[in-house]
Amino acid sequence: MIINHADTDDEKFDSLKTTGSRSEEIYRAAAEVITVKGFDATSMNDIAKAVDLTKAGLYHYIQGKQELLHAIMDFAMDAIEQEVMAPTRDISDPEERLRSIIWHHTHLLTNHGTHVSILTDEVSALTPARREHIIHRKRMYLDFVRSTLQELKDSGKMQDVDVNVTALNILAAVVGMARWYNPAGELTIDQIAETTIKGILGGVIAR
Amino acid sequence: MIINHADTDDEKFDSLKTTGSRSEEIYRAAAEVITVKGFDATSMNDIAKAVDLTKAGLYHYIQGKQELLHAIMDFAMDAIEQEVMAPTRDISDPEERLRSIIWHHTHLLTNHGTHVSILTDEVSALTPARREHIIHRKRMYLDFVRSTLQELKDSGKMQDVDVNVTALNILAAVVGMARWYNPAGELTIDQIAETTIKGILGGVIAR
Repeated sequence: MIINHADTDDEKFDSLKTTGSRSEEIYRAAAEVITVKGFDATSMNDIAKAVDLTKAGLYHYIQGKQELLHAIMDFAMDAIEQEVMAPTRDISDPEERLRSIIWHHTHLLTNHGTHVSILTDEVSALTPARREHIIHRKRMYLDFVRSTLQELKDSGKMQDVDVNVTALNILAAVVGMARWYNPAGELTIDQIAETTIKGILGGVIAR
Repeated sequence: MIINHADTDDEKFDSLKTTGSRSEEIYRAAAEVITVKGFDATSMNDIAKAVDLTKAGLYHYIQGKQELLHAIMDFAMDAIEQEVMAPTRDISDPEERLRSIIWHHTHLLTNHGTHVSILTDEVSALTPARREHIIHRKRMYLDFVRSTLQELKDSGKMQDVDVNVTALNILAAVVGMARWYNPAGELTIDQIAETTIKGILGGVIAR
């Protein structure tokens, strides 16, 4: 159902262009529709409805579903860059930096919801150039975690485990939270972050 | 391109019905096509080509793409049941059982390749009844890991971390391996399993 209210829609479109928060709203809502219905089964109409725009209004803002998918993933990677890597990059102690990375990554769940994060696994739906761009940004994040572990290892504070495998396992755990996190669950986001930090740094077995 | 060689195809179909290994081959090959192209973009023709059957031959064996997707996920859950839970269920020491779960789960990567496992995240493409069935089977596995951790906690050998969150984080790490495992990589599957067990049980920080 396309509702024809062009004036209202133009206003909405203007706000899209000027405010980051409106585009972010669109990314989050579109990510939810896409993760629930699947990318190919989702129409631009479905997305327009979810973000309360006419289909024409939405097309004016984004060129198509492919562009939107890429924009959502880029937004997810922006969040990791700005809300995880930026605030932790200057922490000189690698153990403290690792704790802070896990803390900030966990809080992306409440900052942006779970769907934007889940969608970053859908790189196969992207065109090759866009896919390469997102994979490159993911690799930058992996390198950030890996170099933190390498510093920890070099300082003699790390258990004798492989740095690459450990970085990949840590990222799988924190990225995987988006698939099970429930805002109505028993634990607060701070408690989830704390127990995850404790589990990853200290291990399952008591010392 | 559909190659018309009905006789050969009938022979293949017969072998499909009688040998588990031929169906498993089909599931693995189909999982690869689907994870690379995306479920909706994959045609029955693409799958037939990948498994070296005519499209008619494939349709004779499976009723459709939806059935195939469900069959692949069920096969992945069968592998977890038979190759992870069955050989570890009777290990009485919960620490030993946890080590063995991670060990066997890691080895699914070489037993069945990565694509079958990656595909189990695509539950949104299933019909509601099938989705519920797969989610139920995943929950059984989560409960198995969770109860192992609970026993460990009750025995006083576990660090003071939340059992649910820890079980979810461990599963995310082992299931996530399918997204990065490279058979041509530096480490053998045994080394990956060993370092993962050490990292999860002992933690990143040296004791």
